[in-house]
Amino acid sequence: MKAISIGIAGLGTVAQGVLTLLAANRSLIEQRSGVSVDVVRVASRSARPDVDLQGADFSTDVMDLLSDSRIDLIVELIGGETLAKQLIVGALSNGKAVVTANKAVIALYGNELSRQALRFEAAVAGAIPIIHALQQGLVANRFTAVSGIINGTCNYMLSAMEEEGVGFDEILERAQTLGYAEADPTFDVDGIDAAHKLTILMALAFGTQFEFAKVYVEGIRAITLTDISYAAELGYRIKHLGILRSNPDGIEARVHPTLVPHGELVAHVNGVLNAVQVVSDAAGKTLFSGPGAGGAATASAVVADIVGTALNADQIVADPVANMSKVILPVEQISSAYYLRIPTRDEPGVFAEVTQILSSHNINIEAVIQKDGHDHGGFVDIVILTQETPEARMNEALAQLEALATVTAPVMRIRVAPQD
Amino acid sequence: MKAISIGIAGLGTVAQGVLTLLAANRSLIEQRSGVSVDVVRVASRSARPDVDLQGADFSTDVMDLLSDSRIDLIVELIGGETLAKQLIVGALSNGKAVVTANKAVIALYGNELSRQALRFEAAVAGAIPIIHALQQGLVANRFTAVSGIINGTCNYMLSAMEEEGVGFDEILERAQTLGYAEADPTFDVDGIDAAHKLTILMALAFGTQFEFAKVYVEGIRAITLTDISYAAELGYRIKHLGILRSNPDGIEARVHPTLVPHGELVAHVNGVLNAVQVVSDAAGKTLFSGPGAGGAATASAVVADIVGTALNADQIVADPVANMSKVILPVEQISSAYYLRIPTRDEPGVFAEVTQILSSHNINIEAVIQKDGHDHGGFVDIVILTQETPEARMNEALAQLEALATVTAPVMRIRVAPQD
Repeated sequence: MKAISIGIAGLGTVAQGVLTLLAANRSLIEQRSGVSVDVVRVASRSARPDVDLQGADFSTDVMDLLSDSRIDLIVELIGGETLAKQLIVGALSNGKAVVTANKAVIALYGNELSRQALRFEAAVAGAIPIIHALQQGLVANRFTAVSGIINGTCNYMLSAMEEEGVGFDEILERAQTLGYAEADPTFDVDGIDAAHKLTILMALAFGTQFEFAKVYVEGIRAITLTDISYAAELGYRIKHLGILRSNPDGIEARVHPTLVPHGELVAHVNGVLNAVQVVSDAAGKTLFSGPGAGGAATASAVVADIVGTALNADQIVADPVANMSKVILPVEQISSAYYLRIPTRDEPGVFAEVTQILSSHNINIEAVIQKDGHDHGGFVDIVILTQETPEARMNEALAQLEALATVTAPVMRIRVAPQD
Repeated sequence: MKAISIGIAGLGTVAQGVLTLLAANRSLIEQRSGVSVDVVRVASRSARPDVDLQGADFSTDVMDLLSDSRIDLIVELIGGETLAKQLIVGALSNGKAVVTANKAVIALYGNELSRQALRFEAAVAGAIPIIHALQQGLVANRFTAVSGIINGTCNYMLSAMEEEGVGFDEILERAQTLGYAEADPTFDVDGIDAAHKLTILMALAFGTQFEFAKVYVEGIRAITLTDISYAAELGYRIKHLGILRSNPDGIEARVHPTLVPHGELVAHVNGVLNAVQVVSDAAGKTLFSGPGAGGAATASAVVADIVGTALNADQIVADPVANMSKVILPVEQISSAYYLRIPTRDEPGVFAEVTQILSSHNINIEAVIQKDGHDHGGFVDIVILTQETPEARMNEALAQLEALATVTAPVMRIRVAPQD
C-alpha cells in the first residue's frame, strides 16, 4: 500500500465532494489502486462546522498548507485566480504535488507553472477522464482534431430552447434558478469558460503553449429559436462547441455556436452533459461524454489525480509544452461551411442579389430555405447553407450583403462543424 | 527516458498496426510519455517478407520470445486460445510483462493468470480506453452499471437493417464482404465475442472472478425488420448490448438484443462503432465510444499498454479479483421491462386472452400496438411493452401465451434497457 497525505484548500461544493468520496469509497480505492489517501489538513477562509473534516486539522489560511510538512499533495479548490495561483506556485516550489480543478489558473498561467507535479483532470469536462485519455489511453496517437461540448450551461440552454421552443432569456433565468448558470452568466454564455478548457486541451493534445488569448471565442447570446428551427430543417442541431484542429498551416482553436449534423453522436449529447470528441491517426474518432460539473462528478476527477500522483511518484513526465511549438491560427485563416440567415425585404430580385454576391466570392451554396414573407410584414429570411469557404472571404461577402438596401438587419452567421 | 524492449507474437492485422504505429509516432510517444519502445523480435508461424520488421529479429516459433533475454514485454497477438495462453503463462513466469488483445484467453483463463504484469486494454472495445477509464480515470468510483455496444459486427448489422430496411441474411452477407463479419459469424452474431468482453469488464468493474460461463448470452439472429420497426414506433432502437448491473442480490451479467430509448446517447451509436456506458456513484453516467476493431484502432490500445507498463514498472497493483467476491445472478433472477411481439390469429377476444394472462401474472402494460390484420391473411401481431417484471414471472406468462390456440408462433421477447 502506498500512502499519500493531502491538504485541501477550499470547502465549497467540490471540496466537500472530495471529502465525501474519499470517506465513502476508501476501501474500494485502496483495493483497486493500492493507494491510501489521508486528509491531514483542510484550509478555508471561513470555517464550516457543518462539514465533517474526518479528523483533519483545520486552518483559515490556505497558506498554512504550505508549511505543514506532513502534506505530500495540495488539492487547490478555492477557485479564483490570484490566491489560487499563489498557492499552486508555493506548493510546487515547496516540493509538494498539486491537484487542481481551476481551469482559469491553468489556462492563463499554465506556461509559468512546472508541470512535473501538477495535475488538473478536474479542470476540463468534470467527471470525464479526458486528460487521462489524451495522455494515457490514446498516448500513441497523433491527434488531428479535439472538439466538443465543454460548457454544460450552454448545452443545457440550447437543448432546452430546441426541446421546448422557449427563448434565450427565459431559459437563462431557469438555468440560474436551477443552479446551472451563475447570477452573472458571462463566463458561461459568452464562451470564456469553454475557452479556458479548450486552451488546456490544446496544450495537452497539440503540445502548444497555454495560449488562452489566441482562442477565438463566441458565445450563444445571439442564437434564436428561429435559427434552431432552420438548422433542424436542414438536418442539424446547434451546439456550442470548442474546436481544435490541426491543419497544414497551424492549429485552429475556436469556441462558437456550431451546426452539428444529426448523424453525429455529439448532436445527441443534450442537457448539462459535456462530451469531447477526439480524432486521431490510430484510434480514429472516439467520444467521451459525461457530467461536466457538480461536486461529486468533479471530485471523481480530483481523486483520480490524487491516486495517479501517488502511483506515479517516480514517473518521468516529459513536458510536451517545452518540446514543441505550434502556430495557432487566427479565425480569419480557417475554412468552414456556414449557415447564413439573411433578413431581407420580400421583394423581387433580392434572392438574385444575395446569390450574386456569394457567387462573386466563389462561395458555393449547399442548401437554401426561403419561406413566404407575406405573413411577416413583407420581410423574409433567406437561409443559406454554404460549402466550405475561407473565413476571410466569407467576411467580405457578409460585408457586401449587409450593405444591400434590401438586407434589413445583420446577417446571422453560424459555422458548421468540420467533417472530421 | 525509460526504454522498454518488446517482442511481438503474431504478424496479422493488429501486429502490423502496432509496428506501423510505433514507427510513425515514435518521437511523439517519446515526447509525450518519456518512454522509448524498441521492438527486438517478432515471431510468427509464417514469415511475411512484405512487412517491415524495422530491424527486429524474426522467429517462426513464438516460444523463442520467452528465451530472448533482451525482451521485457511480450505482445501476444496470435489469437486463438491454446498457444496464446501457453505463451502468456510462459512469459509471466519468466518475469516478462505481457500485453494482449486476446479477449477469449482473458475471459476463459483470467483467473489462472497473474495480473501483476498483464495488460489487456485492446481486448475490450478496441480503440476505446475503457479499461484505463475504469482503473484510472474513474478509480474513485463505485460502479453500479457498465453496459454498451461491444460487438461492432452486430451493431453494424442492426444499424444497417434499420437504416436500409434490409433483412438479416442480406446484411450478414454484406458484412462478410466488407470484412465486418467472419465466414463463420457465430462468435459475433450469437453474442459470444460480446460475452468475452463483458466477462472482462465484469471482473474489472465489479471485482468478480472471470466467469464467462455465468454470462447470459443471446445473439441477434432472431431480430426481424418487423421488430425494428415496431421498436421505432415505440420510441426505441434495437441494440445488441452487454449489460452489467449491481443489484442488492448480486451482479447481473447479460448479453442480448435490447430496446434502447431514442433519448439515450447509446441509441445513436451506429455502424461498426462500440460504446461503453459506465454508471457510478460520483462520476454519474459517462459514455466512451469509438472503433471497436481494426488494426490501427486495436494497435492504439496495445501501444498504450506497452507505454503504461514501462511507466508503472514499480506500481503496486492490487488485484481486486483476489480481494472481492460477488454473486453473479442467473438471468431468471433479473427484472426488466419487455417488448413482446405476439403473433396471433386476428379473431375477436384474442387481445383479451393475452392481456388476461399478463394481468394474472401481475405484468403491467406500458404500451400496445395492434394493427389491422386483414392484409396479413387473418394473422396479426400484438405488440406489448411491459413495465418492469421479474424475468421468471415473464417466462411463466410466455409459456401460457404460447399455449393459446390463437397464438400462432413463438412470442418474440426483447428486453428493454434498464433505466440507470
